[in-house]
Amino acid sequence: MQHSSKNILERLEGGEVVLGDGSYCATLEKRGYVKAGHYTPEASVENPEAVEALAYEYARAGADITQTFTYYSRDVGTPDDVNLTCGEINQGACNIAKKIAKEKGTIVAGGIVQTGVFSTKRDKKEVHEELREGLEVLIQNDIDLIIVEFFGNIIEMEWAIELALSYNKPVAATMCIGPKGDTDGVQPEECAVRMARAGAHIIGTNCKFDPFISLETMRRMKAGLDAENLHPYLMCQPLGFRTPDVNHFGGFHLPEFPFAMEPRQITRIEAAQFAREAYHLGIRVIGGCCGIESHHIRAMAEELAVERGGLPEGSRKSDHDLSTLKKKGDMGRDEFKMKGSKEYWQSLIPCTGRPLSSALNRTMNPEVVDRSVLN
Amino acid sequence: MQHSSKNILERLEGGEVVLGDGSYCATLEKRGYVKAGHYTPEASVENPEAVEALAYEYARAGADITQTFTYYSRDVGTPDDVNLTCGEINQGACNIAKKIAKEKGTIVAGGIVQTGVFSTKRDKKEVHEELREGLEVLIQNDIDLIIVEFFGNIIEMEWAIELALSYNKPVAATMCIGPKGDTDGVQPEECAVRMARAGAHIIGTNCKFDPFISLETMRRMKAGLDAENLHPYLMCQPLGFRTPDVNHFGGFHLPEFPFAMEPRQITRIEAAQFAREAYHLGIRVIGGCCGIESHHIRAMAEELAVERGGLPEGSRKSDHDLSTLKKKGDMGRDEFKMKGSKEYWQSLIPCTGRPLSSALNRTMNPEVVDRSVLN
Amino acid sequence: MQHSSKNILERLEGGEVVLGDGSYCATLEKRGYVKAGHYTPEASVENPEAVEALAYEYARAGADITQTFTYYSRDVGTPDDVNLTCGEINQGACNIAKKIAKEKGTIVAGGIVQTGVFSTKRDKKEVHEELREGLEVLIQNDIDLIIVEFFGNIIEMEWAIELALSYNKPVAATMCIGPKGDTDGVQPEECAVRMARAGAHIIGTNCKFDPFISLETMRRMKAGLDAENLHPYLMCQPLGFRTPDVNHFGGFHLPEFPFAMEPRQITRIEAAQFAREAYHLGIRVIGGCCGIESHHIRAMAEELAVERGGLPEGSRKSDHDLSTLKKKGDMGRDEFKMKGSKEYWQSLIPCTGRPLSSALNRTMNPEVVDRSVLN
Amino acid sequence: MQHSSKNILERLEGGEVVLGDGSYCATLEKRGYVKAGHYTPEASVENPEAVEALAYEYARAGADITQTFTYYSRDVGTPDDVNLTCGEINQGACNIAKKIAKEKGTIVAGGIVQTGVFSTKRDKKEVHEELREGLEVLIQNDIDLIIVEFFGNIIEMEWAIELALSYNKPVAATMCIGPKGDTDGVQPEECAVRMARAGAHIIGTNCKFDPFISLETMRRMKAGLDAENLHPYLMCQPLGFRTPDVNHFGGFHLPEFPFAMEPRQITRIEAAQFAREAYHLGIRVIGGCCGIESHHIRAMAEELAVERGGLPEGSRKSDHDLSTLKKKGDMGRDEFKMKGSKEYWQSLIPCTGRPLSSALNRTMNPEVVDRSVLN
Repeated sequence: MQHSSKNILERLEGGEVVLGDGSYCATLEKRGYVKAGHYTPEASVENPEAVEALAYEYARAGADITQTFTYYSRDVGTPDDVNLTCGEINQGACNIAKKIAKEKGTIVAGGIVQTGVFSTKRDKKEVHEELREGLEVLIQNDIDLIIVEFFGNIIEMEWAIELALSYNKPVAATMCIGPKGDTDGVQPEECAVRMARAGAHIIGTNCKFDPFISLETMRRMKAGLDAENLHPYLMCQPLGFRTPDVNHFGGFHLPEFPFAMEPRQITRIEAAQFAREAYHLGIRVIGGCCGIESHHIRAMAEELAVERGGLPEGSRKSDHDLSTLKKKGDMGRDEFKMKGSKEYWQSLIPCTGRPLSSALNRTMNPEVVDRSVLN
Repeated sequence: MQHSSKNILERLEGGEVVLGDGSYCATLEKRGYVKAGHYTPEASVENPEAVEALAYEYARAGADITQTFTYYSRDVGTPDDVNLTCGEINQGACNIAKKIAKEKGTIVAGGIVQTGVFSTKRDKKEVHEELREGLEVLIQNDIDLIIVEFFGNIIEMEWAIELALSYNKPVAATMCIGPKGDTDGVQPEECAVRMARAGAHIIGTNCKFDPFISLETMRRMKAGLDAENLHPYLMCQPLGFRTPDVNHFGGFHLPEFPFAMEPRQITRIEAAQFAREAYHLGIRVIGGCCGIESHHIRAMAEELAVERGGLPEGSRKSDHDLSTLKKKGDMGRDEFKMKGSKEYWQSLIPCTGRPLSSALNRTMNPEVVDRSVLN
Repeated sequence: MQHSSKNILERLEGGEVVLGDGSYCATLEKRGYVKAGHYTPEASVENPEAVEALAYEYARAGADITQTFTYYSRDVGTPDDVNLTCGEINQGACNIAKKIAKEKGTIVAGGIVQTGVFSTKRDKKEVHEELREGLEVLIQNDIDLIIVEFFGNIIEMEWAIELALSYNKPVAATMCIGPKGDTDGVQPEECAVRMARAGAHIIGTNCKFDPFISLETMRRMKAGLDAENLHPYLMCQPLGFRTPDVNHFGGFHLPEFPFAMEPRQITRIEAAQFAREAYHLGIRVIGGCCGIESHHIRAMAEELAVERGGLPEGSRKSDHDLSTLKKKGDMGRDEFKMKGSKEYWQSLIPCTGRPLSSALNRTMNPEVVDRSVLN
Repeated sequence: MQHSSKNILERLEGGEVVLGDGSYCATLEKRGYVKAGHYTPEASVENPEAVEALAYEYARAGADITQTFTYYSRDVGTPDDVNLTCGEINQGACNIAKKIAKEKGTIVAGGIVQTGVFSTKRDKKEVHEELREGLEVLIQNDIDLIIVEFFGNIIEMEWAIELALSYNKPVAATMCIGPKGDTDGVQPEECAVRMARAGAHIIGTNCKFDPFISLETMRRMKAGLDAENLHPYLMCQPLGFRTPDVNHFGGFHLPEFPFAMEPRQITRIEAAQFAREAYHLGIRVIGGCCGIESHHIRAMAEELAVERGGLPEGSRKSDHDLSTLKKKGDMGRDEFKMKGSKEYWQSLIPCTGRPLSSALNRTMNPEVVDRSVLN
């Protein structure tokens, strides 16, 4: 598969399915380079080789986008023992992303996220000031795509889109909301319409909810857009965890977050299923957030190999057509007998190995679990 | 924490708790460098930076041992598109391990595993020939420790120990058996005694069973050794998956293997619990196999910080004392209220987020599930 | 507790909480007197002592209503080997109910249910004709209350209420619908308003959904009524099974129905919790349908003992205040230590003893599971 | 099916499969006639019609034995408000059982159970004295079979058998032990041999463990007997609850006992499966204890209809051949499509409807869960 020199909007216009990458924060926390609770990106300077290794993994796995692992919010401080400015960290992050982009042909994307000041003051000027600071280094480095992401309120999102558009770059806007809507209760349908009217080229959701709940939110966003005859490109970068039991605060409020999320992590089979359903829904920028790792991205790329015109580089080390498993089964190894077929994996509902666990948590009290997302 | 220049036996003699590293095969498969079904280590040559990055992670996380990612069995071929000899691959693996050892002060360990020829012929000469071939490059590179691991039958294990000892290096011997014993039904007690009598300096189990089932096997090994007044050092490197529902073939026969194992992966809390129980049992070389990643090793190192005389390097990026979570709770964020205490995490039984899943698989028919391992 | 000579409307007017009885069909099927698949009431003639024994159980347990175990639908035939007319069966049923009423002071209620003809023709005259036939013997026996129940469509329900009112008796009207509304998609709010406007004195839901889903439907019915300033008495007689995973067809479409429903049956603790929540919601006729047995009714009566002015007769043989369990705990029997407190039982989430079972079924595809009903 | 006039030993000698009945205590507690915590049989006098109704149910369901609902232990007192002597209660119980036996041709069995005095003194004379008192009324009423049951220690059991044999009646001896053996740790194999050598005609287990764990105990009892070339008749009357997570104290120590056991209750399908496996194991007296109700007994009788020479009376009201369900499926009702086949029900693993429940309890700490009993 060859990487394009066109910008993301031209590629989408040409009918491409663009894959985002997975999580840096959550994955690098497990690898030892990001501190839980802070989740700040000083590793872009402290351990650039580790950040680069992960960006490289994602590109090999099929990601068309390399997102800079930049400072994500002014109000979350780095750990006390870190003496780096936001500018230094973000420059380090840009260096890494641009290196991968050069080598692998990926689109460099940089993101800004919701501010703390909005929740206390809702002052547009202050919000813009903080977001502008976050964008500064990204713009200096001439990134290819601004992702205005992890916004929980549509008003701040509109302000952020307005600012992002002022830099004359493609702008993707994704909210961290579920089917219940934003922090003011504005429904996904209306959020989508307002993001589109604010001028974002690509809109959708990211983070906080599981892939299938996120698709439900996307379904509602699309319905809102269709009703208004609006047709921005759609994007979805959900959690890599099954979270049917969250309330509107999402997965970070689960009892298991952050140190016992493993049983909830999605399998690559579920990642592929997510990618297929996202594609059917018309989503053309498909990626992941916390919990999505490179094998998930690779599985998405493999699922959409026909639509994307080929397999990713990483598939060389992947039994993407199950031929290796099939061969083992054919050689008479009973435990592999069925495993060489895609149907086997698609119909498998994995056991948890955890007879003392309950399926859903007992302490959160969400209003509704959408059964259609439980498949 | 300072790394020692003494060899592993001197360190164990001195009362140290030595940590092994985690899985290369399974972890690098997810990262895109190892092909599922083959699980061969050509990445040691093809993508040495990726192998090195993982070895580096483990060392930072607290691993005192860096195991060479060498060719693990003559009868499993590399994928067809790989044109590398076993010697080339193993030399690449040694280069990486020695580089990490130099930088981080780790012990370089190299392993040999059970042969295919044993299962068909049980010919000692042929077994020795094949194992000798596997050891060749390792010995040329003057590794610090030979790990004779993943043996399912005590007879072949005895032959392998005999061979390994001929190189005048510390020898660790670990079998991939569960509480039901080896492929001939020889019980763990007897296996342990025979490994000790064969001269292995360190003995125990690795792979195939979950941490708590493996501890049950170790308990029985220790009972056998105690009864014979034998006192080799003990070692345990289990799977990083919960597998209470396996039969004596172990976790690779589960319906979920290899592409849907996520719900079974242990949390770091469980890794710490494993390390603590292993320590109580007298095990002094504690590590992991498939499914164990760097955050698990770090959690083990942190659990045993007092016994080991300090925290690992990687703890700088770990909320090991939960002070960050505690601060968030103290700041009034309800969802973190309880999470700043170790008791919270130790008593949490994680939900699975999977109401369509059963706890145990319905197709395997193991004889016994040890309830004491379900905690 | 003394039984009143007032009619049900006077008692409700006086602020009483009236308890219905539990299931005859499902309970007598297990006892061997009703044939699964048919669920016809010929036992009222064939084994009257068994029907009477159950009615007696319910009355002892606190039921204020004794429902006649009468023929419930023209289009479901009795088993081939039964040669009894509808009239004979219904007379037998009336005899039993009146005997219990005389002895225990209960209200005799008789029911009519939805017709088969409605689903094919929607012809009011034919529906009336069939329902009139069902009411004939009941009216001849001068029952105290007509329950128009198990109607899935509001139009037929309105016709049935109209007919029932023509007999100048108190009329309760309960639909077997869930939060998704009737067979035409008419929402619970509107169904409630239309039943009230049709003149039913008591309205609500029965059967097909679990107690907590039924309460959700009731919540919506009440909201609809409140919005129109209508204030009929409310009634709820749900299934005695947990069915969070049904679609709008309800519990009879579950894979487990009818021969493997045991794991879903509610406990008496859940029955009490249902009764308490129903009371809080303003429901004043509280009972049960399939799966509700006498210990559930007794638990409801005990939960509402203060509101109802005393315990039922059956509580003489019930550890309703947990004093017996408490004494065992106090005597040092560890396994009973906590069990003497109401909090223990209210907070207990019962284990299933079934590690091969999933929580929710994999085959039905309901749109939504209301999480608030999962408590 | 015709009932025999031969005694039970002649019938067993003739190759019959004899069915016991189900629980009186647990079932009558739910129906409101027995007080939880006490579980004493004063209902035999206070509410004889309710006891008789249940005995009648069991006989109709296929039980060949009617067990007297007699006083079961001197050291458990009746509730304070009961003023009846043991003799009065037991005479009432005999009257009921004999009435059913006369009408239905069943064998009247009376039981004695372990004493409190044994656990404190182990004095044979005192034990005999207490047991003799329990047998007095039974013998006066000339019962057909003495069941020496619910003994947890083989020594007391041997004493009890000795006493029982002195009355020149058939004696069945069943212990309430699991695979771990008796209260002194005497293994099932040895217990069985000692019961046989003590002269019991029929031996086995009753109560405290689930049907499939009980079969495991029976398997071991039979192995012990076979090894000694002893061939008494075998009997098994297990709990009607799934209890894979108990320790050696059995199901009454579960957190759910006694008020939240519903999710654990076995289905009739499981009852049939138990009966079939029991038969295969050579057990010829098959019945149930707490949790076994009449539909379970009927399912056992239907499962063994060929072996027993016909269906029980109660099958007239049972869709024993699934023809009714099949007809519904054939008529195009989708939800019944598969339900007309025995395979459907045998392979169904019922959902629990309880996503907040765990499969196994978290508080008991049994040593081993036998996986073979989880099917």
